[in-house]
Amino acid sequence: MTTNRVARLAQRPVGLVKREDFAFADEAVPEPGDGEFRVKTAFISLDPAMRGWVAEGRSYVKPVGIGDIMRAYAAGIVDASNHPHYREGDAVVGLFGVNEYGISDGKGVVKADTSIAPLEAWVGGLGMPGVTAYFGLLDVGEAKEGDTVVVSAASGAVGSIVGQIAKIKGCRAVGIAGGPEKCAYIVDELGFDAAIDYKNEDVREAIKRTCPDGIDVNFENVGGDIMDAVLGRMNTFGRVAICGMISLYNATEPPGPLANLRSILVNRLKVQGFIVFDFAAKYGDALKQLGTWHAEGKLKLRQDVREGGIDAFPDVLNLLYTSGNFGKLVLKV
Amino acid sequence: MTTNRVARLAQRPVGLVKREDFAFADEAVPEPGDGEFRVKTAFISLDPAMRGWVAEGRSYVKPVGIGDIMRAYAAGIVDASNHPHYREGDAVVGLFGVNEYGISDGKGVVKADTSIAPLEAWVGGLGMPGVTAYFGLLDVGEAKEGDTVVVSAASGAVGSIVGQIAKIKGCRAVGIAGGPEKCAYIVDELGFDAAIDYKNEDVREAIKRTCPDGIDVNFENVGGDIMDAVLGRMNTFGRVAICGMISLYNATEPPGPLANLRSILVNRLKVQGFIVFDFAAKYGDALKQLGTWHAEGKLKLRQDVREGGIDAFPDVLNLLYTSGNFGKLVLKV
Repeated sequence: MTTNRVARLAQRPVGLVKREDFAFADEAVPEPGDGEFRVKTAFISLDPAMRGWVAEGRSYVKPVGIGDIMRAYAAGIVDASNHPHYREGDAVVGLFGVNEYGISDGKGVVKADTSIAPLEAWVGGLGMPGVTAYFGLLDVGEAKEGDTVVVSAASGAVGSIVGQIAKIKGCRAVGIAGGPEKCAYIVDELGFDAAIDYKNEDVREAIKRTCPDGIDVNFENVGGDIMDAVLGRMNTFGRVAICGMISLYNATEPPGPLANLRSILVNRLKVQGFIVFDFAAKYGDALKQLGTWHAEGKLKLRQDVREGGIDAFPDVLNLLYTSGNFGKLVLKV
Repeated sequence: MTTNRVARLAQRPVGLVKREDFAFADEAVPEPGDGEFRVKTAFISLDPAMRGWVAEGRSYVKPVGIGDIMRAYAAGIVDASNHPHYREGDAVVGLFGVNEYGISDGKGVVKADTSIAPLEAWVGGLGMPGVTAYFGLLDVGEAKEGDTVVVSAASGAVGSIVGQIAKIKGCRAVGIAGGPEKCAYIVDELGFDAAIDYKNEDVREAIKRTCPDGIDVNFENVGGDIMDAVLGRMNTFGRVAICGMISLYNATEPPGPLANLRSILVNRLKVQGFIVFDFAAKYGDALKQLGTWHAEGKLKLRQDVREGGIDAFPDVLNLLYTSGNFGKLVLKV
């Protein structure tokens, strides 16, 4: 008899997540109710935001409850449906959770066009990272032709797409990444104009060198001292889109302070936090555009697909915070 | 023979401005050229931004040069004109400088309707502070009916108007000020809903007490720890309009850091710096609205007019930074 392997949150993690923070079990395969459908998950998306989802306290979405199936984006195939718009065999992406079989009412679900890109790409570059990059750069960051765009964590799932969209839009794209391999990747393979290796050079000096005309848009994934350095070179009316502060997610110490606050006033910056859920109503348009760019060869995507199934979830998730992945991290179920 | 008493910048101040940072002289009364007019200044506006104008380095406007007449808003009467739109006897407000007679080409000049308010009010509440409050609260802060608005330096020239406009627009207005007298003033005389005395109570606790539904708009004049406390109570999609950081202007130490950066992300705040010059094209509309509210008795203005003429400029300016004034500080020429 078929069972459903699931990962449920067992306790709230302190620092990096550990295996014992989750309980693994073989459960009965759930049946979809009226207006629902069931998805056999194929690929699970590992996202930095997950660390926030399992933390207690006020955040942008409700935390995952103790005993609940771990929340996750996943791509899969509908294998049973009582929903008018989803049929058996449909490839779909949505918040189906860390399990082999998920139930959905269709809310926030997008159909994955596998003629454009394989299923794993729809939880890869064409999933949450793609729409995050798209809305963060264009709606929040208001990037326009001729702007200089600086993105941190530039070889990451979101950052790598931010720089490529910036290039498509006629901007100068400068990426901050850790180590020569990642820096070479974003310049040589993705077409960024310049890279800053924060592990091996002085970031302030490197910003001066790579952004001679100052910075118009900062797409911020990291926070802390790197963000401070970028703030010091922002142009008048520059925009800072704060997408994440990955440096803080596992911090057990208070976050590093932001010293360069005066730049916000003097340069009349707009510093705006956002999360991609805020743009849910426009996902469809963004994915269509991203898919088109990908099909035209203008947008390169890199998935780092790991094996191991449901039980590998905690170990694979931690790769995000230890820089152990290269490309959008995806777990194969 | 009539002369023109002037204050010229002699050296760049360190910390608070001193008398010897300026050179005072009796000069020939200047003659207006083609398309120019001359103003006999009556009242000079003392504004926190002046400290930035005399500092070296990159700021939002060009610094006053060594040897130049000190920049200042002033109200006065046109006493000679080669300009088609200004005639002898016109009451005007503009950047006429710290001198008895200023020359202008009309750029940035506004005519002062003395039937609505006396001339000193036009460098008082109806001048730069009024338009700063107006655009900062409504355009940058996007305050709307039902919002909770918190303003720091609330009894000051700008802050006192921010709270009153907030009330006119149907917001809850909470002011942060120093000492029981200023707190009583903003609540009892200006109609703020609540005041926080940062000198005598814990600001974080007081924010909880006075803003039970959180904060939607922070109009920030101070920066530093008070701003941090406010950030911690901002509601989702809240707006922080950074108008000034008076606590930093005379600092010889690096500014205090901003620790509560995570709130920007989690609550998707918009934190935006602005200066009133950015709204110059719309001054006329704002002043008309402010003047109407004032005439209707909805907007109370308080000028703190000091005697002493041009030579008193440095001492009167310093009152701003030592909390020595109560109401918009104006120097009578």
